[in-house]
Amino acid sequence: MASLKSLYEPSTDLGNALNTNFDVDYVIDYRFATTSKTAAETQFIKLIEALHNVGLATEVRNGDNCALLIFIKVASERHLKAEVYRSRVQDWLYGVRTVAPKKEIQQNLKDEPITEAERLRLVYLLITKPKNEGGAGITPKSGEWTCVESIFALHDHQFNKAWIKQLTSKYFLNSEDLAEIKDRFGEKNCILFCFFAIILPIFDIPSWFWVLFLVFVEYWKKQETDLAVQWGVRGVSKIQLTRPQFKHESTATDPVTGEEIKVYSPFKRLARQLLQVPFALTAALVLGSLIAVCFGIEVFISEVYPGPFKAYLVFLPTVILTVFMPALLSVLTGFATRLTNLENYETTDSHEAAMVSKIFILNFITSYLPIFLTAFVYIPFGQIIVPHLDIFSLTVRPFAENEKQLTAPKAGFQINPNRLKGQVIYFTVTAQIVNFLLEIIVPYVSRHFFRKVKEVKTNRAMKKSGTASPTADDHPEEAAFLTRVRNEAELSVYDVTTDFREMIVQFGYLSLFSVVWPLTAVSFLVNNFIELRGDALKIAIETQRPVPWRADSIGPWLESLGFLSWMGSLTTAALVYLFRGDGLGPDGTPWNINTAGLLLTMFFSEHIYLGVQLGVRKALSKIDSPGLQKERAERWTVRKQYLQESMGQEAADNAASGGIAGGEKISTSTLEDAARMSTLKGHGTPEERFWQRQQGQAETIAIGKNYIAKAAPKDKFESKKEL
Amino acid sequence: MASLKSLYEPSTDLGNALNTNFDVDYVIDYRFATTSKTAAETQFIKLIEALHNVGLATEVRNGDNCALLIFIKVASERHLKAEVYRSRVQDWLYGVRTVAPKKEIQQNLKDEPITEAERLRLVYLLITKPKNEGGAGITPKSGEWTCVESIFALHDHQFNKAWIKQLTSKYFLNSEDLAEIKDRFGEKNCILFCFFAIILPIFDIPSWFWVLFLVFVEYWKKQETDLAVQWGVRGVSKIQLTRPQFKHESTATDPVTGEEIKVYSPFKRLARQLLQVPFALTAALVLGSLIAVCFGIEVFISEVYPGPFKAYLVFLPTVILTVFMPALLSVLTGFATRLTNLENYETTDSHEAAMVSKIFILNFITSYLPIFLTAFVYIPFGQIIVPHLDIFSLTVRPFAENEKQLTAPKAGFQINPNRLKGQVIYFTVTAQIVNFLLEIIVPYVSRHFFRKVKEVKTNRAMKKSGTASPTADDHPEEAAFLTRVRNEAELSVYDVTTDFREMIVQFGYLSLFSVVWPLTAVSFLVNNFIELRGDALKIAIETQRPVPWRADSIGPWLESLGFLSWMGSLTTAALVYLFRGDGLGPDGTPWNINTAGLLLTMFFSEHIYLGVQLGVRKALSKIDSPGLQKERAERWTVRKQYLQESMGQEAADNAASGGIAGGEKISTSTLEDAARMSTLKGHGTPEERFWQRQQGQAETIAIGKNYIAKAAPKDKFESKKEL
Repeated sequence: MASLKSLYEPSTDLGNALNTNFDVDYVIDYRFATTSKTAAETQFIKLIEALHNVGLATEVRNGDNCALLIFIKVASERHLKAEVYRSRVQDWLYGVRTVAPKKEIQQNLKDEPITEAERLRLVYLLITKPKNEGGAGITPKSGEWTCVESIFALHDHQFNKAWIKQLTSKYFLNSEDLAEIKDRFGEKNCILFCFFAIILPIFDIPSWFWVLFLVFVEYWKKQETDLAVQWGVRGVSKIQLTRPQFKHESTATDPVTGEEIKVYSPFKRLARQLLQVPFALTAALVLGSLIAVCFGIEVFISEVYPGPFKAYLVFLPTVILTVFMPALLSVLTGFATRLTNLENYETTDSHEAAMVSKIFILNFITSYLPIFLTAFVYIPFGQIIVPHLDIFSLTVRPFAENEKQLTAPKAGFQINPNRLKGQVIYFTVTAQIVNFLLEIIVPYVSRHFFRKVKEVKTNRAMKKSGTASPTADDHPEEAAFLTRVRNEAELSVYDVTTDFREMIVQFGYLSLFSVVWPLTAVSFLVNNFIELRGDALKIAIETQRPVPWRADSIGPWLESLGFLSWMGSLTTAALVYLFRGDGLGPDGTPWNINTAGLLLTMFFSEHIYLGVQLGVRKALSKIDSPGLQKERAERWTVRKQYLQESMGQEAADNAASGGIAGGEKISTSTLEDAARMSTLKGHGTPEERFWQRQQGQAETIAIGKNYIAKAAPKDKFESKKEL
Repeated sequence: MASLKSLYEPSTDLGNALNTNFDVDYVIDYRFATTSKTAAETQFIKLIEALHNVGLATEVRNGDNCALLIFIKVASERHLKAEVYRSRVQDWLYGVRTVAPKKEIQQNLKDEPITEAERLRLVYLLITKPKNEGGAGITPKSGEWTCVESIFALHDHQFNKAWIKQLTSKYFLNSEDLAEIKDRFGEKNCILFCFFAIILPIFDIPSWFWVLFLVFVEYWKKQETDLAVQWGVRGVSKIQLTRPQFKHESTATDPVTGEEIKVYSPFKRLARQLLQVPFALTAALVLGSLIAVCFGIEVFISEVYPGPFKAYLVFLPTVILTVFMPALLSVLTGFATRLTNLENYETTDSHEAAMVSKIFILNFITSYLPIFLTAFVYIPFGQIIVPHLDIFSLTVRPFAENEKQLTAPKAGFQINPNRLKGQVIYFTVTAQIVNFLLEIIVPYVSRHFFRKVKEVKTNRAMKKSGTASPTADDHPEEAAFLTRVRNEAELSVYDVTTDFREMIVQFGYLSLFSVVWPLTAVSFLVNNFIELRGDALKIAIETQRPVPWRADSIGPWLESLGFLSWMGSLTTAALVYLFRGDGLGPDGTPWNINTAGLLLTMFFSEHIYLGVQLGVRKALSKIDSPGLQKERAERWTVRKQYLQESMGQEAADNAASGGIAGGEKISTSTLEDAARMSTLKGHGTPEERFWQRQQGQAETIAIGKNYIAKAAPKDKFESKKEL
């Protein structure tokens, strides 16, 4: 644990620097290494002016290597308070809050203190919002702000340290833990941890039955809404941030708010969205061929080729994959990005969702296709296909001793039934460990290494050119702090979607293939435990402090989850049917499959899935969630209060209870008045005369009794009673 | 059209009576033929007192045969207005209205006049609501009100006449027509007509592709919400009426309103709901066997039996069905009712929904099972089964001339491929016509017949016993009116669910089997046209005026629609696959089916269905409905107004637009103040000193420029520019 300790105390020689952020809200990393001096100066002046114009105070310090660090804080607390209050009012206008903020700003802020996340989010918005919406309009690396490398908040190292310590010492997160994460890192990042906290108990049950995944997805949907209500962010996705890159075609009047809004034709967008189909097909074809070829080579080498160097040659496909896959993926991701930009979304949320769906396609192919190939091509059709794998002999020709080694046996080849399990174990254990190392340890080590290299380089360069080190100007009181900020400026930006992607891919392995290796669940249980702490460490140490955005849902990932859990109902059934015996399929001849039986099994499994889904949804919809209940109660109280204010207490009670209790009773005098009126008018209309024949209930009763007495079958019943 | 005319002018000899309702809101039909005189009198007195206690005025007149007619109206208009206002406030409290009603009752009623439906609904509630909720607590035929046969409003014959005339003269209903129906008969009944109005265009397209049904169901869901918003009843199902029959186990505090509510354990209810499973199984078994036996007999007689009376004997199964089916159905419906009562629902809505789902099961079996048997048993397996139908020879033994006629041929039997089409035509055309006659013409004729019979009987009885006719006391001015009311009292109660059931069953034929006979759609087009007018006629003439309940959805029927449309994707695929050649299946031997092919076809079809459903839902969710938009705009306006009232115009604008426009700018003086303060305090904290190193943007800019000048790679870029 010594190394862990050093992780959350990045460098002890910074001393006191870790204990204070000097009240800094944000730091802008201003880099001008590739800009001319004049341009850098002009842009810098514009930047500072823009910041001051929106009420932000600035301090500038030297950065590393042609960089400035611009420290930002809100100039006056009063201004911040107004901003917070404005945001809360907006929430209420959009229906995110049910209770209107108190009319008195001071009172409101006293009742609901400003959280750190709220402050940081609003300051970030002040810096980045377009000018016409009241922000400084600064978007890193785009438009006129080419020198703005990044805008980041400073880590609260004391909190981080305590937080990591706390996380490593407990297994489950409770709602206080989550609330703390929320108040520090914002709802959008926190929801990842909630997802972990809720997914863990599911993985706890070492079962591979897909019904669990289904229940999980539905349960999460409910939980999500509940959390959103608890955090007061339900419906926050309605208040969307306009993408600065959005290009509008025309303007229109918003039918709701009456404000002018920018519009882009949805049909044009749809036409562009349709490009996703060729994109998906190309990705499937390109990645699929690469995977299939490597798969073929691997099978050939491991199961056909008997020649020398076999032990090394089996790694050949891995090498091919390692070389080509990242290249192909980066090209395809580039395509995806361009496609998403082309789709020209108005809001960051929809842009992100569109990107996520494209990335999901790529992930799906790379993560699951190899196992699909083994399960549904190699095992059933192996005996037919493997003899034709001679074509891959090319890859090992230089090593072969004779021609015979390069020819697949035409008969008698037996498929390797352990291949599938081996592959699942590889993807769910080995790959996860490798991934964890790549994600946490490697960046940490490499960062330290490169920092050292840089230091040496800078020193040498300075000695050579004679310019002073950027740290030379540092005030001794701030030196340690500035060193820390310079280090944080070099960290990468935290992207919560990466972590989500990992979770979803894992969920996919579990729901699609855990039937092959029941221990998958256990392996993920361990993995998730580590992953959660790893992600926390990543946020705390490996990346810049994320902007605490709000979110009320995991958004586009929910669809991926649903898709994977549905798909699991099909693959699980197919796998169970195909490998129900010794893993060799029915009759020992794996390629002789009863298609009707297979289809029927899948058909059944899927319909049980759909049925259970319906049932679970219904059942969950009947259970009242505490969050929604709270929301309804609040809404009720607000409206009741409004009524009380405008109608007076008693009247409001009456109106609300819907009773007649407060209504006046009809008295004879009312009727007499009516009668008098009709008399005054002469004999009244036929309607009036009709209603005056019996005045008051006494007359009605008397006449009615009379009618009954006449018509009732008196004796029969009376005498019966007497008997 | 002469007969139609006579239909909407029920009896011309009533003369002026059709033009006035004497301001009567409701009539209570009080029957005491089976009660003792004393009990009848006591109950009558209690009834009148209860009515007067809630502010209702009454008049009593003689009814037919030991009956009283109690006429009810609201005693004072002021009381009605208070009641209407109270209901509107309640709507607002529950979120049905977005705009709070004006604080001044008079102003509110002037802005939104009371519709007839609103008035009638509220008066009905006054009569029937439990006493603790401020009503008179009168529930017909239950509890202490055994003599209260029915509570009904009087028809507005002038409106009815004009309405029927208008309906018969146009093909499509526009939104004004629907609004008029709504204001007269309430949203719950009107939604039936909307369903007709929207379903008709669908049936217009003579296509059998199930995608249409799917689109229809999704489109209707959207349309429904829109209508609800337009009518101002969205979410009205939240304000539910407590069933007087509901038995509670304990009381609890409502977490939303804080009022005391009655609770029944949901687990107990669930346990009782599970009884639906054996109920459905029993129903399927009992009805299924009856249908299967009749089906077998029919096949045997029509296709095996060559003996005498064959032309008559083929009707034998129909006779059996006609005799036993209604009996069985009524027993099963009785069971369903008892089961639903046992489930002990709190609200009428949930009670109705539970009943509907049970009735749907019965309907599903009786309507579709015969066709399923032909399509999926008779045609594929006919050659195997028919030779074993000898068992049914028992039914024709008395008529057979020799034993040979009773033996099925062991070989060479050919199934009749036209049977399926014939059956579909029977169910979709013949049965509909028969049904229409049973529903509209027969009750009309029989009612007139029995009325005559009754008149004759009454006259004879009176002559015999010497008692006066109940009409003897009638005031001449009211005589015609009272005759009319006595007639209306004898009409049955309109049940909108019956009409919905017919529609849904029709929709089922269309979505499940229209592939067999493409003209199904056309036949339903005609049928629906007539049915819509028939239903209108039924409401206007055949039944008592319905209580204008509100509703925001067709509720439980929506699930049935979805189920049928999904099922259609399966049956259509199966039917297309089985009858893709000459209707005899592949290879001419219909029983030699490629199961895998069949399953694959169904699998594909269903997944296309599910995929299209997802797509359609997404697409429709993106199209903003005018109703929801209106709702959002209203909500926005309300909140904005509230802000304006409490904060003043300008501040509200600023707060709403989320801009900083109104925020104060940071001035040097603010900073100087801060500096002065820190000076006063000594040298301030390190944080204060950090932020005081550069005071104001001018200093920041100057220092920053200095840093840039030092660090920038000046010459390289400058010179490049110069080149």
